Amino acid sequence: MEDISKSDKYIYILRRRKRMATIVSPQHFSPVEDAENIKKACQGWGTDEKAIISILGHRNLFQRKLIRQAYQEIYHEDLLHQLKSELSGDFERAICLWVLDPPERDAHLANLALQKPVPDCKVLVEIACMRSPEDLLATRRAYRCLYKRSLEEDLASRTTGDIRKLLVATASAYKYHGEEIDETLAHSEAAILHDEILGKAVDHEETIRVISTRSSVQLCAILNRYKDIYGRSITKDILSHPSNEYLSALRAAIRCIKNPNRYYAKVLRNAINTVGTDEDALTRVIVTRAEKDLKKITELYHKRNNESLDQAIARETSRDYKAFLLALLGHGGI
Amino acid sequence: MEDISKSDKYIYILRRRKRMATIVSPQHFSPVEDAENIKKACQGWGTDEKAIISILGHRNLFQRKLIRQAYQEIYHEDLLHQLKSELSGDFERAICLWVLDPPERDAHLANLALQKPVPDCKVLVEIACMRSPEDLLATRRAYRCLYKRSLEEDLASRTTGDIRKLLVATASAYKYHGEEIDETLAHSEAAILHDEILGKAVDHEETIRVISTRSSVQLCAILNRYKDIYGRSITKDILSHPSNEYLSALRAAIRCIKNPNRYYAKVLRNAINTVGTDEDALTRVIVTRAEKDLKKITELYHKRNNESLDQAIARETSRDYKAFLLALLGHGGI
Repeated sequence: MEDISKSDKYIYILRRRKRMATIVSPQHFSPVEDAENIKKACQGWGTDEKAIISILGHRNLFQRKLIRQAYQEIYHEDLLHQLKSELSGDFERAICLWVLDPPERDAHLANLALQKPVPDCKVLVEIACMRSPEDLLATRRAYRCLYKRSLEEDLASRTTGDIRKLLVATASAYKYHGEEIDETLAHSEAAILHDEILGKAVDHEETIRVISTRSSVQLCAILNRYKDIYGRSITKDILSHPSNEYLSALRAAIRCIKNPNRYYAKVLRNAINTVGTDEDALTRVIVTRAEKDLKKITELYHKRNNESLDQAIARETSRDYKAFLLALLGHGGI
Repeated sequence: MEDISKSDKYIYILRRRKRMATIVSPQHFSPVEDAENIKKACQGWGTDEKAIISILGHRNLFQRKLIRQAYQEIYHEDLLHQLKSELSGDFERAICLWVLDPPERDAHLANLALQKPVPDCKVLVEIACMRSPEDLLATRRAYRCLYKRSLEEDLASRTTGDIRKLLVATASAYKYHGEEIDETLAHSEAAILHDEILGKAVDHEETIRVISTRSSVQLCAILNRYKDIYGRSITKDILSHPSNEYLSALRAAIRCIKNPNRYYAKVLRNAINTVGTDEDALTRVIVTRAEKDLKKITELYHKRNNESLDQAIARETSRDYKAFLLALLGHGGI
């Protein structure tokens, strides 16, 4: 059964996360003291952003949760509202995302992506394809609570055509999360993908079915078989078509499934290389991965670029926003 | 927020269920004694089916769960396996379904429907459209545990075309479950449904989107607007097309959403009127609804037919199977 040794698995995941996380948090801390110090930093003339960063930039998920609770109990106010009213710009957006619980945060990011004049499909694909089935479910639950509609409902009404099919199917999935692989099926479905992507298929129904329903380990097996049989990766074959929004989302989905860390390293690179820097993407990746696998992502980033992520961020960003991102990357702190 | 007064709502639902349920269960009972008496009934020459019915036919969900636990602890055997090895035919299938937890039961029913040479789409629609979002989710979780694949994965690989779109979308949804209605949207989406169903649409993409993503109260508003504006119900308009598998599943989905009790009364009527009786359908409805709204369903059944459901069952079924169904309908017991 899938549930056997769930607690062992959980401990293993926690340990692995700690190794791959970048943030540095103290073992002992006082939520009440932290809440009081944040309040102090918000009072009087101007705000003491440095103090806020030195606290929140060095507290893990559980600690931030306790600080938010303590803040609510002492001041009868949501810490998030306080921060929103005191801070501004990229720094405000980054620290508010950081204070949110991961499911709330993903729901918020998905909603922002859907609110744009042209929905930001890559963010939506990232959330749908990169999270574990349970995390995605928690995000859908948070979305329902926050917006009184379901995530798939908004996805389906804000997009159309193939991109809608892909987004709704991947975001609605509650995939099998075990380790079992069906090799025969991997073989036959690699052929199905090849036929649809390089053949003259009128639509990509089978491709979308496979990508959105097969478990991540099964999908990796399919993608490996694809390369074994046809000598090229599926992402390269997708590039042989004239690009469009759907194909680029499909490619993003496959890259998220195949190698999440490499995908994120590329998002960071694009965000930094864009003229003027894409702060939203930068914030999104750093905030959502700092407690998960940002160490691995920064290593990949360094290997593929001529500088470390820290150097790039120090060059491209400024002031409190820069200080906060660097704190999440492990600078300063205890 | 959706979660406010959840416990009040829960108590209300429990009370309402008790009023609408048919089974009769004692307030006081001993799970150990029940487990021992079931064991006794299974030992020696032949099985004492009457004893088994007199116990399990009169225990509610919570009580059955405790009996199954007690049985496991005392005899180191799953009660379900014991019953399967002792009993046979329709009676065995009915009592095993009854002993299963509702999410496991629905997962099992969905899997059975998918295993058929031609998948039984009506059963699948029923599960996808009739359960609350949380119950459907619990079913998907149970499906993943039992079959090591996701429900939508099997639905997508065992069906094709429009019926696949409808089934996968409705089964994957995690709908908003609150009371809020958007009347303007109801109006405009009623028009969308009308255009696709009576117009010359090449596909039903919007219809499937609306049915599978809008909340049940919103869908009822849409169906009401439809009738107000066009003077006929959407289910009647669907009937104006030559019937096919997809249209009949779509019609079933809409009827499930609109009036679950009436839908079930009709399923029972069809099951009883089929030559030889459709025992699977009969069992499914009685077992899944006996603790929920079977009283209401039997009232509707009686109104629409010239006899009570109890009379029809007494006539069409026999022996232990008959005795068990009648027990679930409230006969005998304490």
